[in-house]
Amino acid sequence: MKFDILTLFPEMVEQFFNFSIMKRAKERGVFELNLVNPRDFTLDKHKKVDDTPYGGGAGMVLMAQPYVDAYESVEKFSNSVTVMLSPQGEPLTDNLVNELAQYEQVVLLCGHYEGFDERIREIISPREISIGDFVLTGGELPALCLVDAISRKLEGTLGKIESAEEDSFSNGLLEYPHYTKPREYRGIRVPEVLLNGNHREINEFRLNESLKRTQKRRPDLYEKYIKNSF
Amino acid sequence: MKFDILTLFPEMVEQFFNFSIMKRAKERGVFELNLVNPRDFTLDKHKKVDDTPYGGGAGMVLMAQPYVDAYESVEKFSNSVTVMLSPQGEPLTDNLVNELAQYEQVVLLCGHYEGFDERIREIISPREISIGDFVLTGGELPALCLVDAISRKLEGTLGKIESAEEDSFSNGLLEYPHYTKPREYRGIRVPEVLLNGNHREINEFRLNESLKRTQKRRPDLYEKYIKNSF
Repeated sequence: MKFDILTLFPEMVEQFFNFSIMKRAKERGVFELNLVNPRDFTLDKHKKVDDTPYGGGAGMVLMAQPYVDAYESVEKFSNSVTVMLSPQGEPLTDNLVNELAQYEQVVLLCGHYEGFDERIREIISPREISIGDFVLTGGELPALCLVDAISRKLEGTLGKIESAEEDSFSNGLLEYPHYTKPREYRGIRVPEVLLNGNHREINEFRLNESLKRTQKRRPDLYEKYIKNSF
Repeated sequence: MKFDILTLFPEMVEQFFNFSIMKRAKERGVFELNLVNPRDFTLDKHKKVDDTPYGGGAGMVLMAQPYVDAYESVEKFSNSVTVMLSPQGEPLTDNLVNELAQYEQVVLLCGHYEGFDERIREIISPREISIGDFVLTGGELPALCLVDAISRKLEGTLGKIESAEEDSFSNGLLEYPHYTKPREYRGIRVPEVLLNGNHREINEFRLNESLKRTQKRRPDLYEKYIKNSF
């Protein structure tokens, strides 16, 4: 997998890959990372990449020329998808992450400030994805969320001690509760069933807890799960 | 506003505040940041903070003792809320961001690896918030999303040239398209109405574009908007 990330803040994005699981995955070659700064492509002598919006209003708008030129400089694989991070996109879900993980290249377009000149959308025709119905100062954090979520699905990212198979959403339900040592902490004991080594009972307990939690917290997911189970 | 962030990767979180709008907001004193590493609170001689799950299964689970002790070391204001970032939480929305921005302190609990020992939830009783129905390697990116989204709502973060008032979701709709210089780029012209200086017509054009885009991309938001308008 290759991730090409267009951002005005490549240093901010890059440092994320110096820690923990993402660092290891990158070092192992699970994915390759290429950061492109549209500021390097501006033809403006002051290196300007944004300007005030036509029609008035607050905020600065990212200019089309540096962004489109930066995008066109990126070598595209045949099995490639271009994603614009934007609150106006389709909501990111675990299913969508699985779908994106099938590509060999994901090109990520991060906005900043007020947004993109509309002609960037028209010329590039990216798939627009939103991580949620809230607004951020830039697309960098959503892009990193996407890279992180996709990478977890790729072979070699999670080791034997980790796993994506039992995560929330992988079976349509929220995850069951976890417990680790000690058996008792501040008077709260680990449920007995988890200590008895009976795997059938453990699986039953965990599925029940997943169902209860999903029903209580996310009735929307619960209804979908029940509907698909029968 | 004070943000206290509990994380095993404080350096990863900290560097985000060295860039752009968040850097400026922090320097201006819009918010104060306190990073706490549960690893500094472990009583284990090998500084261990996670262990294998009771009942078996892949993944490492964050132990209760270092996490709860780290949490209790944080001085709480009277007007404070504690948030655990988790895919099992209530989905983050613009409304929820507005609600959280009213507090004087937000304590953020980031997990990593497979998840929290359930007793951390039971003892701390945090508000659980999810940024979406997908899974990440840790709660750090979601915590940063929350800090960014909340900060944008605080006075002093966005300057005169930026604005949160016209964002997506602030009126329940997706944002209208933006255009900046030049008037024509690769044959695509800025819509004439944005150049004529008639503010009534500009507002009408923008509202119409917002409505069209929302109806097409997010029929769920569109229906809600129409219902609330009549």
